[in-house]
Amino acid sequence: MENEKHWEQCWLSYRKCRSNREYFYSLSVEGDNSSSEIVENAIKEIFRAAKVMFGLSPLKVTSKGTLSLVADSSLSYSSGGFSIQEKNKQCIVSARDGAGILYGVFSLLRLAAMEKNIQGIDTVVNPDIPLRMLDHWDNCDGSIERGYAGRSFFFRDGKILVNERTRDYARLISSVGINAVAINNVNVDKCAAQLLNESSFTSLSRLAKVFSGYGIRLFLSINYASPMLLGGLDTADPEDGKVKIWWKKTFHDIFSRVPNLGGFIVKADSEGCPGPLSYGRSQACGANFLADLVKEYHAVIVWRCFVYNCRQDWRDYTSDRAKAAYDNFIGFDGAFRENVFLQIKNGPMDFQIREPVSPLFGKMQKTNQILELQLAQEYTGQQIDICYLLPMFKEILGFRTYCRENNDTVGDIIRGVAFPRKHFGIAAVANTGDAENWTGSDLAAANLYGFGRLAFSPDLSPSEIAHEWISLTLTNDKTVTDVLLGILLRSREIYEKYTTPFGIGWMVTPNTHYGPSVDGYEYSQWGTYHRADHTGIGVERSSRGTGFTKQYFAPNTKIFDTVSTCPENLLLFFHRVPYAYVMRNGKTLLQNIYDSHFEGAEDVKNMIERFMKLKGLIPNYIFERILARLKLQLKNAEEWRDQVNTYFYRKTGINDVQGRKIY
Amino acid sequence: MENEKHWEQCWLSYRKCRSNREYFYSLSVEGDNSSSEIVENAIKEIFRAAKVMFGLSPLKVTSKGTLSLVADSSLSYSSGGFSIQEKNKQCIVSARDGAGILYGVFSLLRLAAMEKNIQGIDTVVNPDIPLRMLDHWDNCDGSIERGYAGRSFFFRDGKILVNERTRDYARLISSVGINAVAINNVNVDKCAAQLLNESSFTSLSRLAKVFSGYGIRLFLSINYASPMLLGGLDTADPEDGKVKIWWKKTFHDIFSRVPNLGGFIVKADSEGCPGPLSYGRSQACGANFLADLVKEYHAVIVWRCFVYNCRQDWRDYTSDRAKAAYDNFIGFDGAFRENVFLQIKNGPMDFQIREPVSPLFGKMQKTNQILELQLAQEYTGQQIDICYLLPMFKEILGFRTYCRENNDTVGDIIRGVAFPRKHFGIAAVANTGDAENWTGSDLAAANLYGFGRLAFSPDLSPSEIAHEWISLTLTNDKTVTDVLLGILLRSREIYEKYTTPFGIGWMVTPNTHYGPSVDGYEYSQWGTYHRADHTGIGVERSSRGTGFTKQYFAPNTKIFDTVSTCPENLLLFFHRVPYAYVMRNGKTLLQNIYDSHFEGAEDVKNMIERFMKLKGLIPNYIFERILARLKLQLKNAEEWRDQVNTYFYRKTGINDVQGRKIY
Repeated sequence: MENEKHWEQCWLSYRKCRSNREYFYSLSVEGDNSSSEIVENAIKEIFRAAKVMFGLSPLKVTSKGTLSLVADSSLSYSSGGFSIQEKNKQCIVSARDGAGILYGVFSLLRLAAMEKNIQGIDTVVNPDIPLRMLDHWDNCDGSIERGYAGRSFFFRDGKILVNERTRDYARLISSVGINAVAINNVNVDKCAAQLLNESSFTSLSRLAKVFSGYGIRLFLSINYASPMLLGGLDTADPEDGKVKIWWKKTFHDIFSRVPNLGGFIVKADSEGCPGPLSYGRSQACGANFLADLVKEYHAVIVWRCFVYNCRQDWRDYTSDRAKAAYDNFIGFDGAFRENVFLQIKNGPMDFQIREPVSPLFGKMQKTNQILELQLAQEYTGQQIDICYLLPMFKEILGFRTYCRENNDTVGDIIRGVAFPRKHFGIAAVANTGDAENWTGSDLAAANLYGFGRLAFSPDLSPSEIAHEWISLTLTNDKTVTDVLLGILLRSREIYEKYTTPFGIGWMVTPNTHYGPSVDGYEYSQWGTYHRADHTGIGVERSSRGTGFTKQYFAPNTKIFDTVSTCPENLLLFFHRVPYAYVMRNGKTLLQNIYDSHFEGAEDVKNMIERFMKLKGLIPNYIFERILARLKLQLKNAEEWRDQVNTYFYRKTGINDVQGRKIY
Repeated sequence: MENEKHWEQCWLSYRKCRSNREYFYSLSVEGDNSSSEIVENAIKEIFRAAKVMFGLSPLKVTSKGTLSLVADSSLSYSSGGFSIQEKNKQCIVSARDGAGILYGVFSLLRLAAMEKNIQGIDTVVNPDIPLRMLDHWDNCDGSIERGYAGRSFFFRDGKILVNERTRDYARLISSVGINAVAINNVNVDKCAAQLLNESSFTSLSRLAKVFSGYGIRLFLSINYASPMLLGGLDTADPEDGKVKIWWKKTFHDIFSRVPNLGGFIVKADSEGCPGPLSYGRSQACGANFLADLVKEYHAVIVWRCFVYNCRQDWRDYTSDRAKAAYDNFIGFDGAFRENVFLQIKNGPMDFQIREPVSPLFGKMQKTNQILELQLAQEYTGQQIDICYLLPMFKEILGFRTYCRENNDTVGDIIRGVAFPRKHFGIAAVANTGDAENWTGSDLAAANLYGFGRLAFSPDLSPSEIAHEWISLTLTNDKTVTDVLLGILLRSREIYEKYTTPFGIGWMVTPNTHYGPSVDGYEYSQWGTYHRADHTGIGVERSSRGTGFTKQYFAPNTKIFDTVSTCPENLLLFFHRVPYAYVMRNGKTLLQNIYDSHFEGAEDVKNMIERFMKLKGLIPNYIFERILARLKLQLKNAEEWRDQVNTYFYRKTGINDVQGRKIY
């Protein structure tokens, strides 16, 4: 089945290049690990790129090509690690395995495409985080939950698609180091549950083979109640013998038919999804049960920690959703099998524009962990508003948990530096769809690109990554680079300013999550309250309030617990603060709320002005696509500005000191 | 195609009766107008009822039966009018036409079922309002817009259903005097547009024939852009020759194939529906164009006045949606053809629990008018919460417009007493679906029953009507009657108390319109704002504000214009009022808001207590169905109470004087 829609190549577009041509005259492939499909695909990529960049087709030689790939299993790089060395007009990419060769080749091609000087290069890159994953929330009917880039390219009308686009997807994401993909939504409906059925195996197997050629393992999201949905059983209790027999047979069938299957993701006991709690079994019991059954296939169970009471009464001031993930899982540290990963969202709530880091990081010392991020801009502009997320991701990785004296950041934890664990990883909810540019917004592709790059090389800066992406996708032109870097790097801050500054979050339109609705989640069941009245706003989450701050290690508890030491961008996440509170800039909280919204909308206007300079400097169809979204973003920013400011003005009766228009 | 779901008979259930048996021994049918299908159906109803009520099958005699039906075209009753006279043990139902006989028979059976003494009866009933219509918002996929009683019984999966249920529907509504039914949603999608297509004619014709046997004319809602949707034209401009040819042929085809077609309803230039304005043509031009084309078929065009800007900017304080219908139509009084009816919603907004009467009534003196009411409880509890609407309808009919010195009420206008027009009518959006009890809530059937009864006999009181309905549907038991009368008659007031008292309206959850969301429509495009701040609430619609009050005749303008003379239940519809304003009971507006919500929720509790007394006195399955909804109503009432009170408390900081719990 072919996908008839046109699609582009994003950062793998390649362009004519001036330098480094001499390394693409001839190509040799050597080493005991060099005859794999992955290496074949790496070679294909070299030919593809060399043709566009230099109009060359490298001569294949048996040894000592100007470009040489050496895959030698005795080399000491980690899996996927590689070196690039240039000496005497010869460039050698070495690795221990095919994946390393592939990543090394993509890295080399990136350098070439950016017109970097390869001469004398001597670099070794080892990925620190072994599992680098994308989670697609694609449904088998072709829709995508929280998808802002069209329909699914994995599913259409209940069928699995495997076509040239699938291969280009694998190329794109492996080029930035992604090595695992879950293709279906964590909310697994009846139709998607069928992925465990024999009828899906042929297609899944074709898909898995495409992926394996690019070093990507296939994952599936599964419904914990599959024994009932598919097996006709009357229970999914993990302690029930029939249930065990059903899963054992199901796993046997799928693993014997579908190669390259890395394991399963489970959203259990969360937002209506079934799970072990329904049968009085713990999260650990539920996860271990599946883990034991997939162990013989060297597969893993990724178990999400997004468990909270989604039927809270807004009148209940004692419960605090922020505390839920910690409370639900902390007691099970050390209780999970070696092939279980807990997947923890970066913050305690749900992918807001600003949240503190989840206190589970650092506290679960005897548990394999995956940090879960969201590329899909559910609460961050829905790929209409620009929000380059790498600064946020970088902040999260750099967050000191104080779980040790040093090497205690989230990055240290998921790189395995903080605690001696074998398994750790990073995952992100994908932002792709069948849009021609893959991500709806052209600039949102920088998030996809950047996530992979950061996962592979966590020491890269958001600026370096953005620079690479601009260069590879569009141009090396300095004006373009400067303007786009400026736009991307400030975009998260700007979005935060005109939406929900100071960590308050959740003032979005219910369900759709785009645009403002200050009280939209205020009287709801979702545990997402700001409790603004005429004197102040916020939930007191300090030790004097819900006690959420106590879930952190002492130094963080102390910092967050006190209004005067709490970072101001998280002030209203942790504290209930009167509008009259004077912030560090000498202005009241209320005036800062007004200022932030006025300035944020103004910033968008300025951003558009700056962007207009790019007309003629980037392809016009891309210019127009971006401009169209920028105009919508401005409308959105003005709506946020006016609704939020009006809301607080009506509540307080206090004027903006600058007398700007509030309704 | 049969509808396999079970359904009940509502107020046509009949029960064993003790009195009046003697009039059902024999039946004669006489008069020059007596051999029609309608009369046949009336006779069938007599046999059906007599069997259940008396275990009798009347003997058919050629003249002077104990029950005699006389259909004599020379009688001077109006169409559908009838008399019932009893003399010397003979009961005679006389009418000029079949419809009169049918209504007379249903009236007689009603008296019998209620155990009323027929002896000596001598009554004449003429319907004053010639067009008594139900508008169904059923979609051809089987869904119902704002339907709270299951799926459509007219449509399923794009097909028209004609079955035994259709006949029972016709019996039910003709038994209360309804004589026109529009079967499809005024929002006419592509699929429903196909009703004008040849492929629908066979089914429509079967449906129309069932209806005609009960004196009901069939109406269809049509899409103004049908020439484009169906005819492949590139315009629907009424001044375009091709468009005219297309409609002419389409009308010719449908009227020659489908009998008993009364005409068409058009929602034009409203909430996204196409209309003449798109082509720079006036509402009158658009309506007259269709009217001219259907005139030869003695059909009419029902043109809705629900035209307003549904893309308003909430920041725009100068526009006022309440003024829209008047502003859009007042200039066209006298410009419409004789076979055009303007259908005007009762209030200027949209079926809120309390609105003033639309100022168009009385002002459009040279235009045929239909008063549009809504039985479907879109904003009035969605057939979960009890809301007996007849008191509201009665208020509307009794509203003095001051268009004349006397006979100036809305009732006078739609009875043709106020102005010498031939055509006038009353319509209601239906509240039915394929639920076994037809209306989801058992008690909501009282609204369907009551609307028909009031349309036929506008002088009936809500209490009389409710009494009839209880007696016919359930029992003559005094406890039941007292309890249910008490519940029904106070239900609208209670719903108003715990939702939006004082005429403010619109504090509902967007889209679904069930449950509270105080600011839900506040920052929206719908023109539905309360603009509450920390000192007061409401839109000033007086002559000092938007000037809406000036659309009324002077005496009403004066009453509504001044806070002190404005009815307090409409205070916040007409005025922006500070919370500190002291109302007639000596308490502030804010305290009255608190009190109203506390009391309203308390009233629901009391209602449930009273209802519990009926256990064992009404069929248990009905008791349980009602109880289940009452429990939901209480939950809803408490949610309204707490959200609204909390909203105002947070905004004002002013405590409830009684210190009741606010969050």
